[in-house]
Amino acid sequence: MNEERANPGPPPSAMHPADVADRLERLPLEEAERHLHELPPEQAARVLVEAAPEVAADLMEGVEPERLAAWLAILPAEQATDLVPLLEPLQRRQVLEALPGEQARHIRELLQYPPDTAGGIMSENLIALRADRTVAEALEEIRHRARAAQADIAYIYVTDAARRLVGVLPVRELVFAPPNRRVEDVMIRSVKAVPVDADRETVAQEFEKYHYLGLPVVDAQGRLLGLVKASDALHIAQTEATEDMQLMVGLSGEERAFTPWTRSLGRRLPWLYVNLLTAFAAGAVVGLFEDTIQRWSALAIFLPVIAGQGGNAGMQTLTIVVRDLALGELSLKDGKRVLAKELLLGLCNGLVIGLTVGLVGWLWKGSPELGLVAGAAMLLNLLAAAFSGVAIPLGLKLLRLDPALASSILLTTVTDVAGFFFFLGLAVLAMRSMGL
Amino acid sequence: MNEERANPGPPPSAMHPADVADRLERLPLEEAERHLHELPPEQAARVLVEAAPEVAADLMEGVEPERLAAWLAILPAEQATDLVPLLEPLQRRQVLEALPGEQARHIRELLQYPPDTAGGIMSENLIALRADRTVAEALEEIRHRARAAQADIAYIYVTDAARRLVGVLPVRELVFAPPNRRVEDVMIRSVKAVPVDADRETVAQEFEKYHYLGLPVVDAQGRLLGLVKASDALHIAQTEATEDMQLMVGLSGEERAFTPWTRSLGRRLPWLYVNLLTAFAAGAVVGLFEDTIQRWSALAIFLPVIAGQGGNAGMQTLTIVVRDLALGELSLKDGKRVLAKELLLGLCNGLVIGLTVGLVGWLWKGSPELGLVAGAAMLLNLLAAAFSGVAIPLGLKLLRLDPALASSILLTTVTDVAGFFFFLGLAVLAMRSMGL
Repeated sequence: MNEERANPGPPPSAMHPADVADRLERLPLEEAERHLHELPPEQAARVLVEAAPEVAADLMEGVEPERLAAWLAILPAEQATDLVPLLEPLQRRQVLEALPGEQARHIRELLQYPPDTAGGIMSENLIALRADRTVAEALEEIRHRARAAQADIAYIYVTDAARRLVGVLPVRELVFAPPNRRVEDVMIRSVKAVPVDADRETVAQEFEKYHYLGLPVVDAQGRLLGLVKASDALHIAQTEATEDMQLMVGLSGEERAFTPWTRSLGRRLPWLYVNLLTAFAAGAVVGLFEDTIQRWSALAIFLPVIAGQGGNAGMQTLTIVVRDLALGELSLKDGKRVLAKELLLGLCNGLVIGLTVGLVGWLWKGSPELGLVAGAAMLLNLLAAAFSGVAIPLGLKLLRLDPALASSILLTTVTDVAGFFFFLGLAVLAMRSMGL
Repeated sequence: MNEERANPGPPPSAMHPADVADRLERLPLEEAERHLHELPPEQAARVLVEAAPEVAADLMEGVEPERLAAWLAILPAEQATDLVPLLEPLQRRQVLEALPGEQARHIRELLQYPPDTAGGIMSENLIALRADRTVAEALEEIRHRARAAQADIAYIYVTDAARRLVGVLPVRELVFAPPNRRVEDVMIRSVKAVPVDADRETVAQEFEKYHYLGLPVVDAQGRLLGLVKASDALHIAQTEATEDMQLMVGLSGEERAFTPWTRSLGRRLPWLYVNLLTAFAAGAVVGLFEDTIQRWSALAIFLPVIAGQGGNAGMQTLTIVVRDLALGELSLKDGKRVLAKELLLGLCNGLVIGLTVGLVGWLWKGSPELGLVAGAAMLLNLLAAAFSGVAIPLGLKLLRLDPALASSILLTTVTDVAGFFFFLGLAVLAMRSMGL
């Protein structure tokens, strides 16, 4: 369905903004800018909201502050707030000054909440009512809030005199309640809310676990501040999953296939240098045993086997731990249990794979000693892989870093260094016992 | 917040079923079974729905068919349908026979839709109305559908005489429309729907792109069959992301940190054997050059550097391509463009990293020839990494396989084999030119 939409079809002004954004992301910047400027203001503003952040940043750089302010004024405050941080400081100040006072104040308020918290993703697009109003007044309020974007309102949120959230009322219920009843007499009193400083990952977990359509956001005093919708939670979940996958292998977390190559280069190269350092560490371990390899060159054949198997088995463990942490299925206090399981698995895998590697070493090179050394090193390296697959992400989390951060680079460092050390160290012992 | 809930607190019967499921997943099977049987029937049924599929399967194995049927009868048909395939064939037949006729028929109908399609995830929990009904009749219908689960209904779906979807009506609009108007005069005619056989990944993409609260599901004739909700889309997105991350490194896609270790072993070991085969292929390449290494043992030090850097750079490319394919941000027809970008990046990274490796090789071992060989091999291997990082997932997709499937195993095979071949092959040429 997406592919049909991306084909040249209806004019951009008649397309869904998300589809226009898709198209602009694939065009050279100048051409994309020209298309954007030809759109009606509301369409242009919504396209910026739907575009990938870095594309929106590039597109906005070329727009005069007055024009951009006119676009941002059209948007709901929380959407405009997502765009403002993408502007250069000077342009940002100019745009905020050119905005209508109320919208500017709204945006400044929302900008206080970090973007990765409930406050940073909530919308103010909700209907809140005092508990002492009547059903008839509630209906009147809904009638007055006639913006098209609110057609999908399913709940009304009920607050007390201090604006604290005290209940929720399905619109459906409202329709059949006697008009002169008070809202507090018909509302549902058990209403779940999320604190404004809750991590956005936690918010997504709440949605997936409890299947909410919307989750109200409250401050420390329980005052209603906004609403996170299920579709926002979906966007967060996708963003977080992308980020984790990318962080694991040394990417920024924000790169897309169509990110300009110069920007990709600047982001990937530092991590490649980190990996290079770790690769040289592994190389240095091999260097310690250069004489050994010169005297027993068949050892070199098994270096990639020992290291590669350790790396793959470790990645299996690491992937499960990183992902289950992100999904809230696993927490730090489950660490011991997961470690025990993975070590047991490492032992079993290690015995089976170690035996296989040992047999191949023996039969291929006709040397039972080589087989024994390779098999034992394989077993030990799979245990090291299991340990580091659990310890690296949990350790990062303990340090309050993202458990995914460069974790695959760290893991393969362990499995390379440990693998070479086990294998070549055992080879030295074997050569001694063989009298070589 | 999750952690608070998981602590011993309220009795299980008063907890949210998702929290009870969380707790049971951490208990030994027998103890979990005992807890489950102590719950009221509706709570027990809902806990099974919320539990990880393989835990639900284990738990249900020990329940008598009549009791299980009584639990499944309480659930919405689409939730019961998710549980039925987890039963052993004999138990499944017994349970379906013990179910009330209508629920059994419903479940059999829903079982026809593959679980990874829109049909497999849709719910029948929606309100549909004929277009020629009046607003008053519509309100009456809503009043009659008083199930608590439907409190979050925001839209009514409108069909023609042939049950084809023709429009949608926000409940909010219905409240203010004149009671004797016909539904077709007040409904919104432009309604998006998804075909029943659409891939569930596509459904999640639609939700993220267009921010729906719900998306109706239709058959080939446009007849309304069901509804996918935003919270379902969130669950799908999380499941698909987990699956992709796992498939990349040779996991089943369904494993969790608390999957029993014997089951994990059976699933991981086959992929470890696949990886072992590829590791031996890399080892065999080294074996071809055993004499070379014996005569120039410093080469062995650079083997892990050339292979490791290629593997990490390739994983960067692979991760972006796999993820953007899953998010619908990238399609097969974008292949050439992404390949061009990644090759250009591979060239630039290769020149910079190659130069670094070359200098280290020269200065560390005092051999300009070693530096030249290592640097050139590094450049070539980063080009191979870029190529395979794009070609592997797109190739898998062309073959109608999951683009993530074992892709990291395949990629490191390429970067190991190609890396060793470039490096050791160039070393042979260098030794010849040096007259060794």
